[in-house]
Amino acid sequence: MDNKNASSTAGKIIRCRAAISRIPGKPLVMEEIEVDPPKAGEVRIKILCTSLCHSDVTFWRSTQPPMAVFPRILGHEAVGVVESVGGGVEEVREGDLVLPVFQGDCGECRDCKSPKSNICSKFVNKDNQSMPRDGTNRFRDLKGEVIHNVLNVSSFTQYTVVDVTHVVKITPDIPLDIACLLSCGVSTGLGAAWKVAEVEEGSTVAIFGLGAVGLSVAEGARIRGATRIIGVDLNPEKFETGKKFGITDFINPATCGDKTVSQVIKEMTDGGADYCFECIGLASVMNDAFNSSREGWGKTVILGVEMHGSPISLNSIEILKGRSVCGTFFGGLKPKSDIATLAQKYLDKELNLDEFITHEVSFHDINKAFDLLLEGKSLRCVIWIDKQN
Amino acid sequence: MDNKNASSTAGKIIRCRAAISRIPGKPLVMEEIEVDPPKAGEVRIKILCTSLCHSDVTFWRSTQPPMAVFPRILGHEAVGVVESVGGGVEEVREGDLVLPVFQGDCGECRDCKSPKSNICSKFVNKDNQSMPRDGTNRFRDLKGEVIHNVLNVSSFTQYTVVDVTHVVKITPDIPLDIACLLSCGVSTGLGAAWKVAEVEEGSTVAIFGLGAVGLSVAEGARIRGATRIIGVDLNPEKFETGKKFGITDFINPATCGDKTVSQVIKEMTDGGADYCFECIGLASVMNDAFNSSREGWGKTVILGVEMHGSPISLNSIEILKGRSVCGTFFGGLKPKSDIATLAQKYLDKELNLDEFITHEVSFHDINKAFDLLLEGKSLRCVIWIDKQN
Ligand SMILES: NC(=O)c1ccc[n+]([C@@H]2O[C@H](COP(=O)([O-])OP(=O)(O)OC[C@H]3O[C@@H](n4cnc5c(N)ncnc54)[C@H](O)[C@@H]3O)[C@@H](O)[C@H]2O)c1
Ligand SMILES: NC(=O)c1ccc[n+]([C@@H]2O[C@H](COP(=O)([O-])OP(=O)(O)OC[C@H]3O[C@@H](n4cnc5c(N)ncnc54)[C@H](O)[C@@H]3O)[C@@H](O)[C@H]2O)c1
Ligand SMILES: [Zn+2]
Ligand SMILES: [Zn+2]
Ligand SMILES: [Zn+2]
Ligand SMILES: [Zn+2]
Repeated sequence: MDNKNASSTAGKIIRCRAAISRIPGKPLVMEEIEVDPPKAGEVRIKILCTSLCHSDVTFWRSTQPPMAVFPRILGHEAVGVVESVGGGVEEVREGDLVLPVFQGDCGECRDCKSPKSNICSKFVNKDNQSMPRDGTNRFRDLKGEVIHNVLNVSSFTQYTVVDVTHVVKITPDIPLDIACLLSCGVSTGLGAAWKVAEVEEGSTVAIFGLGAVGLSVAEGARIRGATRIIGVDLNPEKFETGKKFGITDFINPATCGDKTVSQVIKEMTDGGADYCFECIGLASVMNDAFNSSREGWGKTVILGVEMHGSPISLNSIEILKGRSVCGTFFGGLKPKSDIATLAQKYLDKELNLDEFITHEVSFHDINKAFDLLLEGKSLRCVIWIDKQN
Repeated sequence: MDNKNASSTAGKIIRCRAAISRIPGKPLVMEEIEVDPPKAGEVRIKILCTSLCHSDVTFWRSTQPPMAVFPRILGHEAVGVVESVGGGVEEVREGDLVLPVFQGDCGECRDCKSPKSNICSKFVNKDNQSMPRDGTNRFRDLKGEVIHNVLNVSSFTQYTVVDVTHVVKITPDIPLDIACLLSCGVSTGLGAAWKVAEVEEGSTVAIFGLGAVGLSVAEGARIRGATRIIGVDLNPEKFETGKKFGITDFINPATCGDKTVSQVIKEMTDGGADYCFECIGLASVMNDAFNSSREGWGKTVILGVEMHGSPISLNSIEILKGRSVCGTFFGGLKPKSDIATLAQKYLDKELNLDEFITHEVSFHDINKAFDLLLEGKSLRCVIWIDKQN
């Protein structure tokens, strides 16, 4: 796509624009930065578009380590073109359309080889602020200060460097903005419904939090034939939005009166939902989800990244009644094989993904994407990086 | 076996001896009591032998509701003979050898019909102190005071009344003391390894608490071909005992120095055990078990009944790495079908159960069974009820 430019910069430091998070919760600042060439096993990517997932908001707002790291380039839902590759990289090459993905997939470690895991264990430097292979950084501001990484991606920049184990080639047949979604939130929700929970036909599902993650769980559950998909959200507008993705019932916790959400769900489902999904990131809601699950086989899946790092608390007697709780990153999917399957399902019109894109902005308006998500107006706001060039 | 006596008492109140728990943590008192005839759907059973499971200790020691209920007849691991049956009971009759089982199995409800659940949902009166069908009691002392039930069984008495959904017929080919074990602890551990965790060949297992429950998990894991079975117990004598049931490594939390038990297990297993089982009943140990489980697929199974009713606390980020936690009553087994399978495996010498019986006492020495368990000397102490007649 961009082959000629790419090769002309290979091996050199690139100067480009990035949106930097310098102060917790404050607007990102557009700055010029330097991006080092990729080292061995790394790939430098020209980002085409990126979108805002709530996990970025959690890091952006954090004031306590280990989540609070500044200055930092946030962003981990994106699609781009390979600008150049470091030594030993054969899997992709200049000009390939790729997704940078926060979840690694080396294909070699015990986890990657097992069908049970998607938690690649190849690298030990999992500090979530540097490159996984050697724990160093590729971004600097013009004063020479290191700009940290997030989630092995950092896509709020014109160019980023990502380890090849976090790079997935994708078919150019797919629209760029849809490809972008598949690199985090939407894949996570679909995988959680299909691979982690294995939602079955006729089952009842309760989803806490109807953002892109929660609604992609709904879409997955709908496709699997769940008969009742209860959405729980403080934002009443999410019910209308949710109907497009299969939400059949809606509960606003603020209008439950004397009852708890779990009481309401237990009454609606004659004892509790078969599958409950937490897609917000609050320990108290994780507890609500667990309490809304049915005795005997109720399964609670945690997707939300707890905003304050708080622990989950579970009633130790209620869990004995056959309930279970599990958590997942990226919906249990293996990026290098499963993203292609999802992309194909989209192309075959088996998946409704267009509706997840509610807004678009250009790069210099990136802070609007934060406002839209926090005001509950957007599912995904796509940020076009190259329109800015 | 006892048919003539049985029929002569049918329909009448029976006066007999029972060991009554009147004051939390104080020795049981042998008293004469009255046992009402079974109502419709109930079975009156002459207990032959019973044994002490730690759950009885938990109820016995409790000082707070809902666990603390006094006066009460404890005991829920037992075998006996049907003395008489109430209206509508066809499944068993006078003279049948049966196990009273705390976990119901009505065969009709949505749970009993599903292969996913063993949490029978037929009755709503689950107060754990009366009969499940109508919430009334069948025991009185000679002053007319109601003596409460425990776990739908109450076996520390010559006669008890149990709902037919909690009665399982068992082959008279099996020794009585072995049959007794199958009505709670041993079945629970085997079921947890086989049906709940589905331990596989070559896997690593960590078991917290090497009582009869923990060691039957070990026996189950050993039979399934687990290569490493790590036992964790504060009582160092449990390592020798544990070797008979497949324990390959032992950790005493009191001698781990600066390291936590989970750090030690992670080092021993290159990242954590595939399956962790909590068989003690302490929230802090449930947390240790979770932290000892491997990223990617580590599964923690809670069997222990938390002694103080405290909640389980789990790190909300660690669970996202593909870990899961589930709990189980009776090892996920369905009493009416699965106990017979275990009995047959014992008769076919596929199961090592004899070694679980470490002590025997007669009924009037029942308090010795409490001492032996609490001093860590016994796995199961069998209490012979009828030798006392
Ligand atoms: N596990 C993973 O791999 C993974 C991947 C992506 C995102 N996430 C996490 O998933 C969560 C959702 O992400 P998103 O991008 O869909 O977020 P989002 O902000 O778009 O959606 C969150 C929704 O939750 C609702 N909400 C907030 N507080 C609530 C409460 N107390 N009760 C009910 N509803 C409430 C909001 O109104 C909103 O609709 C975040 O925690 C994010 O970090 C996890
Ligand atoms: N879920 C079920 O269906 C079910 C069935 C039976 C028993 N249980 C529960 O299982 C648990 C075990 O029962 P049991 O009869 O085997 O008990 P037990 O008393 O025979 O064994 C408990 C073991 O744990 C050890 N232990 C105690 N505190 C410890 C600590 N802090 N760290 C390490 N080891 C410690 C003791 O030394 C002992 O060996 C109890 O909580 C009981 O209530 C549950
Ligand atoms: Zn994300
Ligand atoms: Zn790997
Ligand atoms: Zn028991
Ligand atoms: Zn039932």
